[in-house]
Amino acid sequence: MGSNSLNPARFFDPDPSIRRVARALYEETRALPIVSPHGHVDPRILAEDAPFPEPASLIVQPDHYILRLLYANGVPLEDLVKGAPRRVWQLFAEHYYLFRGTPTGAWLDYELYEVFGIRDPLSGETAARIYDNIVEKLGAAAFRPRALFERFNIEVLATTDAATDTLEHHCAISKSGWKGRVIPTFRPDALFKIASPEFDALGARDYTSFIRAIAERRAYFKQLGATATDHAVLEPYTALLPEEEAERLFQRARRGEATAEDERRFTAHLLMEMARLSVADGLVMQIHPGALRDHNRAVFERFGPNMGGDIPVATEFTRNLWPLLNAYGNDPRFTLVLFTLDESTYSRELAPLAGHYPAVRLGPPWWFHDSMEGMRRFRERTTETASIYKTAGFNDDTRAFCSIPARHDLARRMDANYLGGLVARHVIDESDARRMARALAYELVKTTYRL
Amino acid sequence: MGSNSLNPARFFDPDPSIRRVARALYEETRALPIVSPHGHVDPRILAEDAPFPEPASLIVQPDHYILRLLYANGVPLEDLVKGAPRRVWQLFAEHYYLFRGTPTGAWLDYELYEVFGIRDPLSGETAARIYDNIVEKLGAAAFRPRALFERFNIEVLATTDAATDTLEHHCAISKSGWKGRVIPTFRPDALFKIASPEFDALGARDYTSFIRAIAERRAYFKQLGATATDHAVLEPYTALLPEEEAERLFQRARRGEATAEDERRFTAHLLMEMARLSVADGLVMQIHPGALRDHNRAVFERFGPNMGGDIPVATEFTRNLWPLLNAYGNDPRFTLVLFTLDESTYSRELAPLAGHYPAVRLGPPWWFHDSMEGMRRFRERTTETASIYKTAGFNDDTRAFCSIPARHDLARRMDANYLGGLVARHVIDESDARRMARALAYELVKTTYRL
Amino acid sequence: MGSNSLNPARFFDPDPSIRRVARALYEETRALPIVSPHGHVDPRILAEDAPFPEPASLIVQPDHYILRLLYANGVPLEDLVKGAPRRVWQLFAEHYYLFRGTPTGAWLDYELYEVFGIRDPLSGETAARIYDNIVEKLGAAAFRPRALFERFNIEVLATTDAATDTLEHHCAISKSGWKGRVIPTFRPDALFKIASPEFDALGARDYTSFIRAIAERRAYFKQLGATATDHAVLEPYTALLPEEEAERLFQRARRGEATAEDERRFTAHLLMEMARLSVADGLVMQIHPGALRDHNRAVFERFGPNMGGDIPVATEFTRNLWPLLNAYGNDPRFTLVLFTLDESTYSRELAPLAGHYPAVRLGPPWWFHDSMEGMRRFRERTTETASIYKTAGFNDDTRAFCSIPARHDLARRMDANYLGGLVARHVIDESDARRMARALAYELVKTTYRL
Repeated sequence: MGSNSLNPARFFDPDPSIRRVARALYEETRALPIVSPHGHVDPRILAEDAPFPEPASLIVQPDHYILRLLYANGVPLEDLVKGAPRRVWQLFAEHYYLFRGTPTGAWLDYELYEVFGIRDPLSGETAARIYDNIVEKLGAAAFRPRALFERFNIEVLATTDAATDTLEHHCAISKSGWKGRVIPTFRPDALFKIASPEFDALGARDYTSFIRAIAERRAYFKQLGATATDHAVLEPYTALLPEEEAERLFQRARRGEATAEDERRFTAHLLMEMARLSVADGLVMQIHPGALRDHNRAVFERFGPNMGGDIPVATEFTRNLWPLLNAYGNDPRFTLVLFTLDESTYSRELAPLAGHYPAVRLGPPWWFHDSMEGMRRFRERTTETASIYKTAGFNDDTRAFCSIPARHDLARRMDANYLGGLVARHVIDESDARRMARALAYELVKTTYRL
Repeated sequence: MGSNSLNPARFFDPDPSIRRVARALYEETRALPIVSPHGHVDPRILAEDAPFPEPASLIVQPDHYILRLLYANGVPLEDLVKGAPRRVWQLFAEHYYLFRGTPTGAWLDYELYEVFGIRDPLSGETAARIYDNIVEKLGAAAFRPRALFERFNIEVLATTDAATDTLEHHCAISKSGWKGRVIPTFRPDALFKIASPEFDALGARDYTSFIRAIAERRAYFKQLGATATDHAVLEPYTALLPEEEAERLFQRARRGEATAEDERRFTAHLLMEMARLSVADGLVMQIHPGALRDHNRAVFERFGPNMGGDIPVATEFTRNLWPLLNAYGNDPRFTLVLFTLDESTYSRELAPLAGHYPAVRLGPPWWFHDSMEGMRRFRERTTETASIYKTAGFNDDTRAFCSIPARHDLARRMDANYLGGLVARHVIDESDARRMARALAYELVKTTYRL
Repeated sequence: MGSNSLNPARFFDPDPSIRRVARALYEETRALPIVSPHGHVDPRILAEDAPFPEPASLIVQPDHYILRLLYANGVPLEDLVKGAPRRVWQLFAEHYYLFRGTPTGAWLDYELYEVFGIRDPLSGETAARIYDNIVEKLGAAAFRPRALFERFNIEVLATTDAATDTLEHHCAISKSGWKGRVIPTFRPDALFKIASPEFDALGARDYTSFIRAIAERRAYFKQLGATATDHAVLEPYTALLPEEEAERLFQRARRGEATAEDERRFTAHLLMEMARLSVADGLVMQIHPGALRDHNRAVFERFGPNMGGDIPVATEFTRNLWPLLNAYGNDPRFTLVLFTLDESTYSRELAPLAGHYPAVRLGPPWWFHDSMEGMRRFRERTTETASIYKTAGFNDDTRAFCSIPARHDLARRMDANYLGGLVARHVIDESDARRMARALAYELVKTTYRL
């Protein structure tokens, strides 16, 4: 990071016999199109295709990975969120050393060097000059969102959208004649939160109409290209309730009387319903469990959600998913992609589940684990039980549009390095490794997400 | 795997200074006899010594590691379990690529190459030819079970047997005059399951006679060479109940009225009793906790147990074993070998327990963790606290007879590689490493299991 | 260990590109002063500065890492604790092979070679000669405690002291005119244990006076140089109780009527109070949770606490610390250093907490994890989320005075090796690594502990 050049062998193990193979495998996958089946880019960016204004609001402010580490090291959030753009950029640059050894640092180095062509290392001294340089670039046609989408070689980009979203930007993109494939993902979290003011009953008066309304929204999403749903839950607890009880909980929710325990049980039941609907409509089901949201109340109250105060908790899959997997886990029409923030479950629960149930695929290392060491641990702990073929390729999961190629590049490097290690230890041979590298970089994500 | 040759340096780290030492250490242990203190080979095979019929029923069908990964990738279990042998073999061969990077793949490569002398890589194209080749070999005297036992250089093979087993095959082997040492292991799981139809009261009418009957069965096993007992429990919870309460639970069990909670407490109590009996009769006690059996009900109902639907759960040892270790953990007559499917317990609970209580030894990485990376993690997380001298050598734990040498070879390679890494980092010197390699491959298993 | 020479490249990865950088980084930090902010050296040693009597009572008997592994391998504790010194030393030497591959072995090798200049490897044969050699050295002025303190280049040594300690030895040291900085740490465990005979109410009659008395004791400690408090709890559960309830629990404690559940809640409340007092008086707060103390009752009853029967349990931080971090985690006046014996929390809970809350710093790998592999895991699992800058440098945490330099040397080597790996993989460059190595070895501990 001191000098902002990107070593072509970066992130590969230094052992020559691993590095040689890793580089060769990476060279075969680096130019493959990017398939991004799960992320948080705002589709408006690509619908409007307006120039990005300046670097602070493009790179720093939407990236909660950056904000949280600056905050953790004493930079006031006010200064970052509400400061003048040049001041925000200066603050960021002065603390850039904090990101040494983190994936955020690796992504930023790539983004600055490859996307924006910056050759100076970012620091307090170079901050203003680099700011001006990026501002100038952002004014050019080649840096408009759609031009970058094409330059990034994105084959498909999935966004994440509330169940009630009009999907107007997706519609606009599809009507615009632009060939970029930007598809929504059905994320009905607000329909699950019956104990919260966020709860949305989709206008339904009874539980049966509620489920019908959900099915209709799913159909609408599907019509606009969606191939998947996504569910963020504190625990992946699943349980089928009797119809009358579901109705009772739904009515309690409508009256604003549902308790936390009601919500827990309704959520467990709705996950079963979502799986049932997935069998019917073919939408791939994703579960992202285990984040305790908005842990830091003071920060949440002043700055809102996604400001870094989400902290993982231990997560149980074997018992929690029992009802769901017994009902649908053997069904060839069903695909369930599981994510975790609790790495102790990789070898203990997730790999054994994926190594048995036909429906289960393992999502890539998520969030805090979307990193060099996180990816290494994921492969080392899941491959031997589940094989690479029960994993779902890479997700960038980002709202930072310009970091997409950086994240995929890092993932392809780490997978190439993992396979290079297997070749160097004569666990697999090089021709196997080539096929596996291609599967990890491109094929598995397409088959998993039906793209 | 592409070309089915076995690189002599396979599984060793590629760094030359590690690999050189690892190879040297491995060369010193590779020819040591195999001591197999825990496994699931059917003793009838060695009692009857009949030729194995053909490869599908020898290699594929009894191996739930193979079946589950094929099933997880969409191969119908019916086709594998009930298909014609040649068709099963063909299906297996066509999906052989799924095992790349898995220990099952490594074992199979070894078995085909070393045991059956197959030189072609297994694939859909070579399947039929290889099938014929193996069929031909199996007809030869050198491929009879006892001949293979001798060729594999097995010094002792322990089977796993129900408490009520007549041990007729062990008797037959011992009367046959053949010198192979095949010993039973006392596995009284059915005596613990008081809430299940499987419960076996050994014909006892009261709790005291029940315990006496157990002691008699243990004595019978010991007479036929057993040196150990084995206990599969969901959690390693132990607690001594008052005699009256044990009696009450036993009577409830006899009447078929015991609940799941009754069973949990009776199991906790019986583990205490088993430890007490072990102190008296010297049988080494093994606990294999943490597998939730038959997770997939549909598969269980159609195909029975051991069909891949066993999934691990988080396991607690520190509090659960407190009563048992306080009662017997300091007794020099007692040996307790602990296994786990929850790797987070290695450094947190198991190594500290083994690093303190004289009675405790750590069993090798079990089941999903009996793998290259699993063995690496086990040594890295237990040695520094418990030393290698509180570990129990290797268990192959297999019902696949012909995979025994493959599994021991892999374990010896991984231990040699671990020690090679310590030498290369100057943590130990090479003469220490030689002594430690021999201990891990041969001596520790013999002292632990009193063989 | 076979030959007791210390390879200058020991503990570094053998890959030449890692080792070269690791050695260079280590060379830059090896001569930095030792800052020891948390440990258990008896301050009397430095107050009296009397010669150490002989090696068994200096090296073997106070070191529960040594005692527990010898005991676990069948050496009777009586022989170690109550044996004649030469006999204890002989027993230790005969079992020295047990420590191969353990950090205790690495520390002992260093201590014998570097501190005592022993060139023979320790074994049953050399035991007596080495014993005599050390006895002779201990008689020399250069081996008096203060002389060793200076030779070890200790800049500051923090002890751990009960809340009611008179700190007479700290006073004596400070009055003696000797320039060594030996400071106390406020460890009020006995004030928390309201259900135990150990409970100490500091003479207070009501809860308000109790808190006032605590604040006074803190002020006294601070006056004698303390910069930190330390809290050993089974779980890091925090909760603010209403004043009346705190009073009620306190009165129950005074009457000896408090239950285990009372103690749990009072502890949770007192942790909140300790944080509040830390905000006020600036003492850094440390929490060491997760050890179930005195697991082995028989050993505890015969030999007392700290005899190796402390076993970790799974530990939860995200929910348990929620109240405390919401109240004080954003306060720039507050520093909370978190330790764990449950490594599964590194990436799941601790790094996310430290990567968000300004007040949180991660303590180094503790106790069973204060080891080569433990340090490697700690850095690999925390750096990417929390950065190295939210970690607290190294703690030796030892009561074995002569092992202090050995422990710091090992830690500096492992951090240099970790950074060397990042350089070799082009994650950071060498000038970054130099700054980071210095931070890890010297700067972070000083800023964290306000030294």
